[in-house]
Amino acid sequence: MATKVLPQPEQDEIRVEAVLQALGEPVRLTIVRALAEQPAGIACGEIELPVTASTRAHHLKTLREAGVISTHTDGTRRISILRREDLEKLYPGLLSGVLSAKQ
Amino acid sequence: MATKVLPQPEQDEIRVEAVLQALGEPVRLTIVRALAEQPAGIACGEIELPVTASTRAHHLKTLREAGVISTHTDGTRRISILRREDLEKLYPGLLSGVLSAKQ
Repeated sequence: MATKVLPQPEQDEIRVEAVLQALGEPVRLTIVRALAEQPAGIACGEIELPVTASTRAHHLKTLREAGVISTHTDGTRRISILRREDLEKLYPGLLSGVLSAKQ
Repeated sequence: MATKVLPQPEQDEIRVEAVLQALGEPVRLTIVRALAEQPAGIACGEIELPVTASTRAHHLKTLREAGVISTHTDGTRRISILRREDLEKLYPGLLSGVLSAKQ
């Protein structure tokens, strides 16, 4: 089945301010923590979040446009993956530091 | 001369969302980069910034209240210091990752 990757910045287009702003929101941080545990990606709807579907979609878009996650279609599902390697290359330690924070 | 430390969160009161939000703003990131080069601290007015004094004060307050910087008085001056050890203990790698970002 054909898959499509949703628009996202190339690695060299990622800006640290956008990454920090994307990560600095509780719901988005919950999404990032969930994705960090699923290297193969996860269907966006499967992450338990205390928000509406449209708010969820908005947060996922913010993360994607900041370069934090990558999203592709899989049939009718959208699978998101944390761009761990890209972020680690650009900002070594940043993501692991954020993930080590107490919840 | 008596010095006074301005109000700031204790290490265990620091929240990662607040730190990320504080860091995710270009002017505040400029302040943090400047402080990272001056471990002994720097008088706030000495950092070159393209903003008014009141905006500068607002950004410094945001950084202080998030736990990113510590500010104390020195006579009529206010000296700010990056809370590098506190942040490194809470979020190992986060700050160095942010500071390694291309400007």
